Amino acid sequence: MEVTSSVELSARPGPPVLDVVAIGNALVDVIATADDELVERLGLVKSAMTLVDLERSRAIYAAMGPTVEISGGSAANTIAGVASLGGRAGFAGKVAEDQFGEVFRHDFTQQDVELDLAVVAPSDGGTGRCHVLVTPDAQRTMATHLGVANTLVPGDLSGALFSRTRLTYLEGYLFDLLPAKQAIRDAIEHTHASDGLVALSLSDSFCVERHRKDFLELVTTQVDVVFANEAEARALFRATDLADALAAFDEAGVLAAVTLGPRGVAVVVPAGTVEVPACEVDIVIDANGAGDLFAAGFLYALARGGDPVEAARLGSICAAEVIVHSGARPVADLAELATAEGLL
Amino acid sequence: MEVTSSVELSARPGPPVLDVVAIGNALVDVIATADDELVERLGLVKSAMTLVDLERSRAIYAAMGPTVEISGGSAANTIAGVASLGGRAGFAGKVAEDQFGEVFRHDFTQQDVELDLAVVAPSDGGTGRCHVLVTPDAQRTMATHLGVANTLVPGDLSGALFSRTRLTYLEGYLFDLLPAKQAIRDAIEHTHASDGLVALSLSDSFCVERHRKDFLELVTTQVDVVFANEAEARALFRATDLADALAAFDEAGVLAAVTLGPRGVAVVVPAGTVEVPACEVDIVIDANGAGDLFAAGFLYALARGGDPVEAARLGSICAAEVIVHSGARPVADLAELATAEGLL
Repeated sequence: MEVTSSVELSARPGPPVLDVVAIGNALVDVIATADDELVERLGLVKSAMTLVDLERSRAIYAAMGPTVEISGGSAANTIAGVASLGGRAGFAGKVAEDQFGEVFRHDFTQQDVELDLAVVAPSDGGTGRCHVLVTPDAQRTMATHLGVANTLVPGDLSGALFSRTRLTYLEGYLFDLLPAKQAIRDAIEHTHASDGLVALSLSDSFCVERHRKDFLELVTTQVDVVFANEAEARALFRATDLADALAAFDEAGVLAAVTLGPRGVAVVVPAGTVEVPACEVDIVIDANGAGDLFAAGFLYALARGGDPVEAARLGSICAAEVIVHSGARPVADLAELATAEGLL
Repeated sequence: MEVTSSVELSARPGPPVLDVVAIGNALVDVIATADDELVERLGLVKSAMTLVDLERSRAIYAAMGPTVEISGGSAANTIAGVASLGGRAGFAGKVAEDQFGEVFRHDFTQQDVELDLAVVAPSDGGTGRCHVLVTPDAQRTMATHLGVANTLVPGDLSGALFSRTRLTYLEGYLFDLLPAKQAIRDAIEHTHASDGLVALSLSDSFCVERHRKDFLELVTTQVDVVFANEAEARALFRATDLADALAAFDEAGVLAAVTLGPRGVAVVVPAGTVEVPACEVDIVIDANGAGDLFAAGFLYALARGGDPVEAARLGSICAAEVIVHSGARPVADLAELATAEGLL
């Protein structure tokens, strides 16, 4: 499979072509520092994302220390990164008509992100929220209450963005929402019908375990680009080591970027696997958003005609920015950073 | 006037004695970076706090970049600092039954701050919010929409905390709320009737201009401790220089701590004026909260029997912690910091 931007989509009549459009859970992150003891006491899986109902969500919030609130959501963070790089980006999802929903919409509107957002009356806790516990080792343990995002159905979205984008990005977490599966299928169909490419993030190794069959089918038949870390890649193929997982991506004929933390990224392309080193950082404050922002740089570079190795380098720069501060959205101007590195 | 903790309040029967109780505006800070051009375009006064109505508040929010939300409010930040120092603290104010109100309550509950909080149905924009624009010079320009805090009346509060505290802390901003004046008078009366001391922050030089007569009367007749920066101190007494303002505090017989930024603090005590140097910091990221956290350290030390110079030193440590990161509430454990400096 070859990734190309040779189709000059922008020459078409109509509204401007978008670089990346994501469909994902619209969440506000509620972030606090915590120790391992609290993570354990709350019954959460360290460094993973656990879905919780409203009652448990309230109990977790009550047990957390003073928090900071900031727009979040995995694919949404990626879109914030694409916009910070100067890309034309879009997001499709669902929020409630409440203050967290207003915060989520505001932050994207300010970044000129085009929205296909269902805004509904608050129910089931309102706009989705992700409680993020950051432990001293900079790992984040997440407990997500999806709120109204849990009821995303195709009728909520106009779907128009997917016909205008070079790349559509799906977060694996969306498969936790049964009604969203049809919305995902529609998004893939609209994208491919307009000669766009579809990318999927495997999100979390537990998420892979929950939806392995769906993910395997997508990766082998419908998706053009896959993002995973080592645990997710191995879980998908039940591979005993990284090499086996990379070989399985190669066999599936998909462009795969497997992030390896400080060891960099393994990029599976038709010619084989290329390793791209991570950007060095002095100290990791909060690993939350590293994968999301890697995807931002990677997707933006692909959308603008970069090759996969250039894309991985840009992804690494974006990931490095987000882990040296609290929160999963970029604080620095990513376009400036990338320009300084000669990548834009 | 002599500040003393010789009255052993904790020997009394009943609920535990509190170190510091504040009455203030319960706000959530909505923080974004901004350039000077935006501050000017929005018609805000650089480095000051401007009160805005709901309509203007919405226009300002719409013009701000992506934001971070965190519990705020000037006196409330001070109380968060007192709690972080290990002090027993209380807060009286008013929020709406909405998500920002929930955030505000949660963060204080987590710090074991006792609350005398009116929680009412959302109206006039709900829980108060302060839009904070942080410019590259680390100055913060604020636009506050008080929301339901604007309607604080004595009937909203039980007032019980003021009879149990060593120190009651009033923020000058409260005088912008006409109905709050009676609540302030009640708080002062309850505090003095229980042998507690009353402290007042002048808040902001424009706030001093708005309420100069009220503030002068309080400072000369009812208040035991005053916090001001140089501009506020000079505005209060229409003094042409700092020395004149310090002399006026001395004449008023009040304990005054006049913060001078990197030049430290001038403390006016009966024996004269003592200068306490500021704590050195590498780089100031966000000056928001410096005055609030200085007051936290100062008040906590006084409540625990420290002399005013020790109090100013603890205040300086707390102020230094809050300016090296974004947001106006402490991130580090202030009790640990103070212990490391030999002050606790």
